[in-house]
Amino acid sequence: MQHQEPGGSQPAAETLAEVGEFSLIESVTRSLPASDNVLVGPGDDGAVVAFPHGSVVCSTDTLVEGIHFRRDWSVALDVGRKAVAVNVADLEAMGARATALVVGFSAPADLPAAWARSFSAGLRAECDRAGVALVGGDMTRARDITVAVTVLGDLEGRAPVLRSGARPGQLLAIRGRTGWAAAGLAVLSRGFRSPRAVVEAQRVPEVPYGAGADAARAGASAMIDISDGLLADVGHLARASGVCCDLSRDAFEIPEPLQAVAAATGIDPYTLILTGGEDHALVAAFDSHDVPGGWRVIGSVTERGEESGPMVLVDGAAWEGQSGFDHFGHPGS
Amino acid sequence: MQHQEPGGSQPAAETLAEVGEFSLIESVTRSLPASDNVLVGPGDDGAVVAFPHGSVVCSTDTLVEGIHFRRDWSVALDVGRKAVAVNVADLEAMGARATALVVGFSAPADLPAAWARSFSAGLRAECDRAGVALVGGDMTRARDITVAVTVLGDLEGRAPVLRSGARPGQLLAIRGRTGWAAAGLAVLSRGFRSPRAVVEAQRVPEVPYGAGADAARAGASAMIDISDGLLADVGHLARASGVCCDLSRDAFEIPEPLQAVAAATGIDPYTLILTGGEDHALVAAFDSHDVPGGWRVIGSVTERGEESGPMVLVDGAAWEGQSGFDHFGHPGS
Repeated sequence: MQHQEPGGSQPAAETLAEVGEFSLIESVTRSLPASDNVLVGPGDDGAVVAFPHGSVVCSTDTLVEGIHFRRDWSVALDVGRKAVAVNVADLEAMGARATALVVGFSAPADLPAAWARSFSAGLRAECDRAGVALVGGDMTRARDITVAVTVLGDLEGRAPVLRSGARPGQLLAIRGRTGWAAAGLAVLSRGFRSPRAVVEAQRVPEVPYGAGADAARAGASAMIDISDGLLADVGHLARASGVCCDLSRDAFEIPEPLQAVAAATGIDPYTLILTGGEDHALVAAFDSHDVPGGWRVIGSVTERGEESGPMVLVDGAAWEGQSGFDHFGHPGS
Repeated sequence: MQHQEPGGSQPAAETLAEVGEFSLIESVTRSLPASDNVLVGPGDDGAVVAFPHGSVVCSTDTLVEGIHFRRDWSVALDVGRKAVAVNVADLEAMGARATALVVGFSAPADLPAAWARSFSAGLRAECDRAGVALVGGDMTRARDITVAVTVLGDLEGRAPVLRSGARPGQLLAIRGRTGWAAAGLAVLSRGFRSPRAVVEAQRVPEVPYGAGADAARAGASAMIDISDGLLADVGHLARASGVCCDLSRDAFEIPEPLQAVAAATGIDPYTLILTGGEDHALVAAFDSHDVPGGWRVIGSVTERGEESGPMVLVDGAAWEGQSGFDHFGHPGS
């Protein structure tokens, strides 16, 4: 198939990789017209749409074979589970309860039907865990497997918890793990299958279902799903809120499996914890007396200093290590 | 990248192509657990989800490069417009008003950024035409461009119009065109770019926005979006309703551009009209006095005869021509 566009694109034209995902999304969404029924538009973990009798939160996330999963590393059941988990995590981060989910599934014609059936069993298993109903889908052919999930959720009468609500003086707290999926990726990409706990974390994130709504009820004023890595995503929250977030390294114990991966690979375990993505923990900002049970304080919100300074600090200083693990070691998206 | 699944799949294992899309979807959705907040589950043009204060209709559809569009046939703007149009058509077919839309966009890193910007301009242009707000999205890398759109809509207090509500004695009426996109495909695949009207129809369907809600208000008891072809989709409606649908060939005039394509290619124009997909007309069943303005009667609903007989007839007999045009001439999905 030719990929030449009618009218011709110059060979030296700027590519997606050069422009970067975030800058392109920004340029696309900046000029979106305002609409009365859009309560929260692009740029947060989910959108909030007004209906005549209430509002609905929705979010979409796509998993692509070779980028977000590999068939030789993950069985079909796990791919189905992961597709649900990463999407529900976005709704958790809005303080919503996920209720329904639709799936667009694209796959090559020679895919074993058993793979597709096992994948759908995984979808259903994780939907059950998350308390979400699988309500529809679409199936089409493609060269690579692509799974596009959209999840809908209910705020149960509460305001959505946005990224932009953090205020100086608050505490930052986490619910869930970080660094585990990145550690799993590190061992899998070296041809190993253990420690089993981190390999499993790479295959299916352990999302703290219900924790987002708990945080909202407890008074969280800002929240985000940690998908790209703790520093990167807390950076998004800090930027949206116009604050600085100062994380405390001592708040993070190195769990045993991460110690093992660090020892075997030479990767700094704090690099895993601070920059590893795909674990889908939640980080929220609370007033100090509001941090609910099960959440661990990992830092504080401070005034934004100079415009050019970093928005996320670790123990009061800019993080000097690697800035982000991307899917399968691609340069940060 | 190796595509060997852990545990090993037999080389002779049944593939997606052998099982077929519909049979697989059926096997996946048959055993879905019932849920109190799912008012309409998989199997119709959209799902209807109950929220505490009302219901929301949603539907998802994926466009894949090389299957649903080609970059050498369609400019980016048209791909964006098409992605919106085909999704909103599904909500029209539920009798709903589409209100909000999210997009999962996957593309290769070397895609010209200008293509992505033009694509997003197309999304926005068609959203404006359809009266829908673009509220969120996700961007990721992939070998081929994949566009997964999910659209949400409002029933404005009405019951959804399902595929299953057709009753013997009713009339079948259509709003919109059929055969145009297939005619466009026929000329494009022969290397031509005219007649322009059918080529444009292949690039962006002309969806009759608002017609679905109009039909619902007028009393349509069943409705479907014609995406796979008139006979195929009316067949889905007939099967869901347990009726037979008898179409009248004389109800279809051959528009001039289709006459031209038929003359140039030797394709029977009725084959285009009755089996060509991707125009996204709406077909609905009405009591005879309810057919609203702008809709054209194309047949009637009759009692289902023998279990083994065809559910869709043309002038009282089974259609003997080709049974369906699929995307880019692949065998019927």
